[in-house]
Amino acid sequence: MKDMTDLDQYEVGYDIPAKPGMDAADIQTPALVLDLDALERNIKKMGDYAKAHGMRHRVHGKMHKSVDVAKLQEQLGGAVGVCCQKVSEAEVFARGGIKDVLVSNQVRDPAKIDRLARLPKFGARTIVCVDDVANVADLSAGAQKHGTQIECFVEIDCGAGRCGVTTTEAVVEIAKAIEAADGLKFTGIQAYQGAMQHMDSYEDRKAKLDIAIAQVKDAVDGLKAEGIACELVSGGGTGSYYFESNSGVYNELQCGSYAFMDADYGRILDKDGNRIDRGEWENAFFILTSVMSHAKADKAIVDAGLKAQSVDSGLPVIFGRDDVEYIKCSDEHGVVMDKGGVLSVNDKLWLVPGHCDPTANVHDWYVGVRNGKVETVWPVSARGKAY
Amino acid sequence: MKDMTDLDQYEVGYDIPAKPGMDAADIQTPALVLDLDALERNIKKMGDYAKAHGMRHRVHGKMHKSVDVAKLQEQLGGAVGVCCQKVSEAEVFARGGIKDVLVSNQVRDPAKIDRLARLPKFGARTIVCVDDVANVADLSAGAQKHGTQIECFVEIDCGAGRCGVTTTEAVVEIAKAIEAADGLKFTGIQAYQGAMQHMDSYEDRKAKLDIAIAQVKDAVDGLKAEGIACELVSGGGTGSYYFESNSGVYNELQCGSYAFMDADYGRILDKDGNRIDRGEWENAFFILTSVMSHAKADKAIVDAGLKAQSVDSGLPVIFGRDDVEYIKCSDEHGVVMDKGGVLSVNDKLWLVPGHCDPTANVHDWYVGVRNGKVETVWPVSARGKAY
Repeated sequence: MKDMTDLDQYEVGYDIPAKPGMDAADIQTPALVLDLDALERNIKKMGDYAKAHGMRHRVHGKMHKSVDVAKLQEQLGGAVGVCCQKVSEAEVFARGGIKDVLVSNQVRDPAKIDRLARLPKFGARTIVCVDDVANVADLSAGAQKHGTQIECFVEIDCGAGRCGVTTTEAVVEIAKAIEAADGLKFTGIQAYQGAMQHMDSYEDRKAKLDIAIAQVKDAVDGLKAEGIACELVSGGGTGSYYFESNSGVYNELQCGSYAFMDADYGRILDKDGNRIDRGEWENAFFILTSVMSHAKADKAIVDAGLKAQSVDSGLPVIFGRDDVEYIKCSDEHGVVMDKGGVLSVNDKLWLVPGHCDPTANVHDWYVGVRNGKVETVWPVSARGKAY
Repeated sequence: MKDMTDLDQYEVGYDIPAKPGMDAADIQTPALVLDLDALERNIKKMGDYAKAHGMRHRVHGKMHKSVDVAKLQEQLGGAVGVCCQKVSEAEVFARGGIKDVLVSNQVRDPAKIDRLARLPKFGARTIVCVDDVANVADLSAGAQKHGTQIECFVEIDCGAGRCGVTTTEAVVEIAKAIEAADGLKFTGIQAYQGAMQHMDSYEDRKAKLDIAIAQVKDAVDGLKAEGIACELVSGGGTGSYYFESNSGVYNELQCGSYAFMDADYGRILDKDGNRIDRGEWENAFFILTSVMSHAKADKAIVDAGLKAQSVDSGLPVIFGRDDVEYIKCSDEHGVVMDKGGVLSVNDKLWLVPGHCDPTANVHDWYVGVRNGKVETVWPVSARGKAY
């Protein structure tokens, strides 16, 4: 396997966009660039918030897919570990030294269950979600085969409309089955309301979370009535963490996007009606792109298209500029409206991507920049780990 | 560097979705799967067409980003080489043994020009596009520095609205500058009408191509009037190649998507009003996905979301099924409407992605399948090569 810590193996402009020590101006584009000062401030701020509210913060590693960022979140933000969505992603974090890993998703395929059951051997507390009593026997067999323990969250669908059960009866039934199964331990509840995170209005988001919290509280009470302790109640995202933190029901957050920010999240409003990227969180995550053609007077063509980002949540926004606008995206090109003709070939623009998670997933490297210099280059270590 | 030809280094389910010899049923999902029979038929069919029409076929490598697929296109389809969009992509193809490589795009950054000028040292004829006379001196300096020759196409914007000049005067001016520059050779014209390829109606596409062909013919005539020979006139895609082939102006095609097909291209109509994926081309390119939750009676949740595909051109279509429908996509999940409750956990579905190029770009491997067995596993060798 290629050693991603030995940058000397890599050629700038072929394998890798930059090397530490370079001027930021020399980064090969398109590249993912992190503003390290902004990133560190975001991480510290959320860490301080979680601590002040008595919440564990299990950061969502599926957002950045980076062991380096996860470790920074532990160091600066007091993160207790990570969650992620796939077993192969969890392996990257566990092999990378993260000691508490939740696969916040269902694992049903026999080969994947076998891999999951081996995760504790990397030294990681291993937790997985369950939404079907039929999954319990398979997980138990995997844990017994490898002589490990898999902890389980029962997943509640509290509005995301994907995985998860919807009744307290189902939660209790699955929790009992887990408690009765060798090699498994019932540890708590997964209840992430994903569908409301991107609603613009704070009040709209609160209304959705109030419903979710009531649903989760009912499940916790139902478990208690059966004498089943619920060590962790986990959920919350960048658009909702204050609701979970003040719920009296949740005790663990799972925020991801706060650390990087993106254009789609940035547009949602806080309780005072301000965009969350104008005070609450800073943009720390950019696609650096270059103008590579300006054959038409009013349009600059840049080198970041669909292969440098995901546009599922809208086009990128050009950071710090209101004189030019990214208006169209094709595979390898972006079209920037430049009515004033202010851009020249080789000019660089900082794009705030529409959606950070799938954008990180098309890049191999993060270039960490501070004071105009490349300070670090980190692999997107779980990139492509979709299994 | 990791040796992508030695599959024994890779763990199935962590680094790689499958190994040759496995049953297709055991492929770890989500995975990109190629139906090798369909792929070979597509490649041979386009090769036969090009040959019968006296056209060179320079296959578009930016679609598949795979040296293995490019070599298959040479062997079975008589391809003369590849085009691609970035210098780092071109390096992958040149290093991989492709002998004729066109960067069908502008290269302006000094470091990229330096890399481009080294490409002939890998044994590849190297061609690049130019749409600005100011680029000529830089390209010439790069070629002279490395003692190589860079061939140049002048790029005409014949409707795509991105790079390229729009007048015959500009074509002639740039061609003359190229001819006068040491280390460069004027080889022809790049004229790809990208904007019409996905128009459903054959007649609408023809109308756009008629305009493009007239524009290109005017440029070729203008060059001839100045005594400048135009060896190659290159362009054409899966939605237009018959127009270029019968134009009397173009002599080189650049088709890409025909080999794989995707849902968005498949919907366009041939001259008889039939979808092109119902006769003209076969679906050879799939995302294999598994059901990993079915907690709601009418919805199956599958494991292929935004990190397994690009949805810029619409959601994927479930191949060969009209009883279930992929209706929603989030980062790691797809929601499949299953009104009849016909799906079970661990069932596999074959998705035809909306757009093949950026979908290939999120995967590391192609799994080639024939008769229900994994026959080959090919790296997506230029994945992430966006520089």
